[in-house]
Amino acid sequence: MHGFAAVRDVSPGLRTLFSPDRVAVVGASGKPGSVGRAIVENLEGFEGDVALVNPNRDRILERPCYPDVASVPDPVDLAVVAVPPPVVADAVREAATAGVGHVVVITAGFGEAGPEGAKREQELRQVAETHDLAVVGPNSLGVMGTGRSLNATFGPAAPLPGSISFMSQSGAFVTAAVDWASDHGVGFRDVVSLGNKAVLDETDFLRAWDDDPGTNVVLGYLESIDGGREFLEAAREVTTETPVVVVKSGRTDAGAQAASSHTGAIAGSERAYEAGLEQAGVVRAESVGELFDVAESLDALPVPDGNGVAIVTNAGGPGVMTTDAVGDSSLSVAALSRETREALTEALPDGANTHNPVDVIGDADVDRFETALRTVVHDDAVDAVIVVACPTAVLDFESLAATLEEVRDEFDLALASCLMGGARARAAGMALSDAGVPSFFDPSRAVRSLDALERYRQVRERTYREPTEFDVDREAARAVLERAADRGTPRLGVEAMDLLDAYGIPTPDGTIADSSAAAVSAAERIGGPVVMKIVSPDILHKSDIGGVRTDVAEADVADVYDDLVTRARNYQPDATVLGVQVQEQVDLDSGTETIVGANRDPQFGPLLLFGLGGVFVEVLEDTSVRVGPISEREATEMVAEIDAAPLLRGARGREPVDRDAVVETLQRLSQLVTDFPEILELDVNPLVATPDGVVAVDLRLTVDQDQ
Amino acid sequence: MHGFAAVRDVSPGLRTLFSPDRVAVVGASGKPGSVGRAIVENLEGFEGDVALVNPNRDRILERPCYPDVASVPDPVDLAVVAVPPPVVADAVREAATAGVGHVVVITAGFGEAGPEGAKREQELRQVAETHDLAVVGPNSLGVMGTGRSLNATFGPAAPLPGSISFMSQSGAFVTAAVDWASDHGVGFRDVVSLGNKAVLDETDFLRAWDDDPGTNVVLGYLESIDGGREFLEAAREVTTETPVVVVKSGRTDAGAQAASSHTGAIAGSERAYEAGLEQAGVVRAESVGELFDVAESLDALPVPDGNGVAIVTNAGGPGVMTTDAVGDSSLSVAALSRETREALTEALPDGANTHNPVDVIGDADVDRFETALRTVVHDDAVDAVIVVACPTAVLDFESLAATLEEVRDEFDLALASCLMGGARARAAGMALSDAGVPSFFDPSRAVRSLDALERYRQVRERTYREPTEFDVDREAARAVLERAADRGTPRLGVEAMDLLDAYGIPTPDGTIADSSAAAVSAAERIGGPVVMKIVSPDILHKSDIGGVRTDVAEADVADVYDDLVTRARNYQPDATVLGVQVQEQVDLDSGTETIVGANRDPQFGPLLLFGLGGVFVEVLEDTSVRVGPISEREATEMVAEIDAAPLLRGARGREPVDRDAVVETLQRLSQLVTDFPEILELDVNPLVATPDGVVAVDLRLTVDQDQ
Repeated sequence: MHGFAAVRDVSPGLRTLFSPDRVAVVGASGKPGSVGRAIVENLEGFEGDVALVNPNRDRILERPCYPDVASVPDPVDLAVVAVPPPVVADAVREAATAGVGHVVVITAGFGEAGPEGAKREQELRQVAETHDLAVVGPNSLGVMGTGRSLNATFGPAAPLPGSISFMSQSGAFVTAAVDWASDHGVGFRDVVSLGNKAVLDETDFLRAWDDDPGTNVVLGYLESIDGGREFLEAAREVTTETPVVVVKSGRTDAGAQAASSHTGAIAGSERAYEAGLEQAGVVRAESVGELFDVAESLDALPVPDGNGVAIVTNAGGPGVMTTDAVGDSSLSVAALSRETREALTEALPDGANTHNPVDVIGDADVDRFETALRTVVHDDAVDAVIVVACPTAVLDFESLAATLEEVRDEFDLALASCLMGGARARAAGMALSDAGVPSFFDPSRAVRSLDALERYRQVRERTYREPTEFDVDREAARAVLERAADRGTPRLGVEAMDLLDAYGIPTPDGTIADSSAAAVSAAERIGGPVVMKIVSPDILHKSDIGGVRTDVAEADVADVYDDLVTRARNYQPDATVLGVQVQEQVDLDSGTETIVGANRDPQFGPLLLFGLGGVFVEVLEDTSVRVGPISEREATEMVAEIDAAPLLRGARGREPVDRDAVVETLQRLSQLVTDFPEILELDVNPLVATPDGVVAVDLRLTVDQDQ
Repeated sequence: MHGFAAVRDVSPGLRTLFSPDRVAVVGASGKPGSVGRAIVENLEGFEGDVALVNPNRDRILERPCYPDVASVPDPVDLAVVAVPPPVVADAVREAATAGVGHVVVITAGFGEAGPEGAKREQELRQVAETHDLAVVGPNSLGVMGTGRSLNATFGPAAPLPGSISFMSQSGAFVTAAVDWASDHGVGFRDVVSLGNKAVLDETDFLRAWDDDPGTNVVLGYLESIDGGREFLEAAREVTTETPVVVVKSGRTDAGAQAASSHTGAIAGSERAYEAGLEQAGVVRAESVGELFDVAESLDALPVPDGNGVAIVTNAGGPGVMTTDAVGDSSLSVAALSRETREALTEALPDGANTHNPVDVIGDADVDRFETALRTVVHDDAVDAVIVVACPTAVLDFESLAATLEEVRDEFDLALASCLMGGARARAAGMALSDAGVPSFFDPSRAVRSLDALERYRQVRERTYREPTEFDVDREAARAVLERAADRGTPRLGVEAMDLLDAYGIPTPDGTIADSSAAAVSAAERIGGPVVMKIVSPDILHKSDIGGVRTDVAEADVADVYDDLVTRARNYQPDATVLGVQVQEQVDLDSGTETIVGANRDPQFGPLLLFGLGGVFVEVLEDTSVRVGPISEREATEMVAEIDAAPLLRGARGREPVDRDAVVETLQRLSQLVTDFPEILELDVNPLVATPDGVVAVDLRLTVDQDQ
């Protein structure tokens, strides 16, 4: 559950967490190796005041110690709590009473540690709600803010200052990442170890960093996302200005199992996370390496206007490798203009390649690299550049680095570099990274780094539109669901087709007849051969008992009625038989069978699904999903992105189907399942799409009877 | 073209290239910055003799200089040639005459440099053939062999000794890779810059290193593979004992274009490379980073017997990340036995996780890590281990490294490690890598490194069987092709169905009738309704002109005959009409339409293809390919690996089709296109597969008329 944001908008307030004036360490200790002592020591560089609180000591490490926060003479704005689990709630309450608004609970032994701990966590949450407190943790490593050199953690590493703000659901990973980053010259703005997220969670920090001018990039390591819908909405807003990069672990079945045993969180489905994070505009990284490459690039480089990349190299082979990596990415190899190529031909020696990748060849010095670089930068097709240099006798890497830095600054260029050497490339590579030109040995990493800019550009250029509100008959739909509830049946079939009618999703002409006479008159009204289906909430697989008959002529309707009812009775004598549906026969051959459906994810809520019927969904699993409610753009993407989409567009000589009608149906379905959260699962299968529209031929849904 | 191996088996001889007794530098120079001087200087550490050759100098760098190789007083076994392009062939000829068997041509300006250069390269190849010479290059950076500290290159870097042998189609990449590897403590056995591969190519070096006890792993950077078939056969042999890891660049369209402009090589199709390298047992790397991670792991670690991996960590989050990476790989998270878990429960504190990933928790010291490690190693389900350690106050990385090294050696364990820190992890990480425990920051790289062992294990466990030789009527097939050649038509259709009959591929009963009377009598003989198709080599798309009629009753056969011939005449008055095929009507609904086909790749020769008919191939591109001739195992894999394979196995209530018959058809087709290289392209579409067998309903092929 997404906790704190529901209480109030904490975003501006969270600055205090990372940049307080006075910190109280509740549970401060002088005992070597203790957490309380580690925190006190880590706070030594803090540019504000630190007060030590411990009722059992007068002095700690030769500094005064207070029995409680209220006794601290000056006002405390952040309390870091590291007392034993049973007394945490009391300590937090005391701090709140003393006027503290922000608390970090370091202590473990809460939700992650059995029922007793869960109770403690519940109590802590109540204290926070009562006192309107911003609480990090429990079971947190702590928080760091380089603005005032705050290191309120018990970890062994402190970050360099920078503009990346970082939240992590693993405290150990904070330690590891900060240590590694310092070694690689990467700095942070704010860092928070989220712990158990009893109160503040990822959504709160997203919002906080959105408002923070010191944060260029938000980085997250998350194992679960609580309140997926709120996270999605917050991220959608944040990412219009600030890139958000996340490793969401537990991606694979094995990983999800490990994550659940680590945090005890109920895992939502990976497909929901994948869809939700994509819809939220989050750039997802799959490994730690990717996380930092992407973050560095988004922090250091401008986001270009397009995806055309020029490669300038002194070596053909590495040029080809770089091109391959571009081919794997969302970037494209820029087609250089004739002018550019003429200028390159003029400037470069024979044997050079003036097509992209531009090969300035093995005897190139720094000047020749610079000439080629300056020439391609002026080409309109070039939005970003990768310079790939192999060591040669005539090339000085340090001087090349200085030149790249100069050109990068002059043009505010999205530039990445590969200095493909070992010891001889190290200093130059470090200098480049420090100067905001990401530098690697492996060309594929340089490409990945620019690719992140393109992925973020696409996010930033999206226009988010609210889902369309169709004019629907909500009351009629509610009536259908209430009828089902009255009957006490959680599973519904064709008898619920009115639900679709109510939401404007076309269904075949038809009715449920409860006598053979009614069936005959319905068939006469509809005209032509009809489809007849037994209607019984107790018979889920109608076809299996011969409960569906197609192409029934008017003359046969009465007999078929009797036959269907008899079959149902024989199959299950006590089944409730509501009658027989008599339905206009839809010509399946003239259209394409599709499936539109929805289910409910524990984290993200309604999840819409689209695919083609038959083998496409069942064997090839060729489906698209989105977290609902979906906008027209999202519905359109769903229809376009399945592998079999060309069939809808008219592949193999077919007439294209009315895709707009499919898109509209998905949106209407999205509105339906959003309006009625009691619909747990719903499948329209098939929804037949023809060149002239769509028609929902069959329906199955499951309703939560407790709602 | 694969050159030298055709002349003689050079493998044992190639040792001399990397470990000669006396090297002559032909084109030696004292001029600063010249290639001739760089080679002389790089040879200074060589443990054999070096003779300088240059007709224009008496002494170079204060050493004696000879006018030609013949004048060198002692026998020379390797000549390194760096004279201007026009005199290279002469210099090589002179060296050969003087008894030199091995030559490295450094000089550029050959095949890569226009028609003039191509002529020179042809001449060089002739000299090599005449004198039975092993020639590297031209346009090569040179060769290195650490056995005798040979560095016969003009590059700036020299390798550390090791057991990885490395060939590269890019000289610059040799320089880059060697420099980088030295910095990372990675050494090489032999290194060769292949240059233009006028004589010796990748296949020759594969064979040479197969016989070399000093080579543990073969590494390759290749942009093209000449003589794909020979390479495949050689690699298949080599990889039974020595892993071969290759970056084949030009994977993507953009990359292939760049590669072709770099080397001038005609690119084979990426699908052929992908299939061929896989069939050859080559472990393919997609990036430079992957190439070296994989090489290091295969060089340092034993190949375990299975794919079960245990993760031992002091941090839950990084444990989950590692598990995710395992989920992405061919490894699996080992399910620990009850005994193991009980032993872990006993040894570890409360809060530890005794399931895999095993979490020894944050306060673990080295002893606790060691206990957990030794416990999991004894579990039968555990074949390899990854230790993931985050920095904590109580964990000493150096001492952990020493322990890991000890356990690794004691159990000859496939062990990889993540010391997740920066500066504080560096020394320990280096020590681990040096001791044969690959060490990384990013868990996904540790997993990749063990995954390489599993990929190679699968290669090594394959049993290669020769393709089955079916008893076929080769002469009958030849007659069909000759008839086509006589008619001067490269494209054939149903009139060539006899080709399939001759190779034992079932076809419907049928005949080509050249009169309506013949058609009627054929239909009578066949019985039942028939299919009739116009037969004309000039009409490729029979359906488009209404040239195919199905379900023709006997009574209508004469009329339909006339109608089809009229349609053909109207469509194209001068078309050759061979008649009308009258064919048994195959019930398409009772079976599944498949496509079996073959085309010809410039590098690998026959390429077999399999897929399901209709949208599966045309829209979803769901096909499998193999380089032919294929064995039963390969044909079976082709049928099993398409996405739609469940349909053949009986998904959705279908009866399974006779997959053995499909597999046999693929093998027979493979034999056909291998026997007749003049078949450029052949498609059986559809091959209808039913529970009782297969039948080839239609056929299209293209024949090379010059053969």
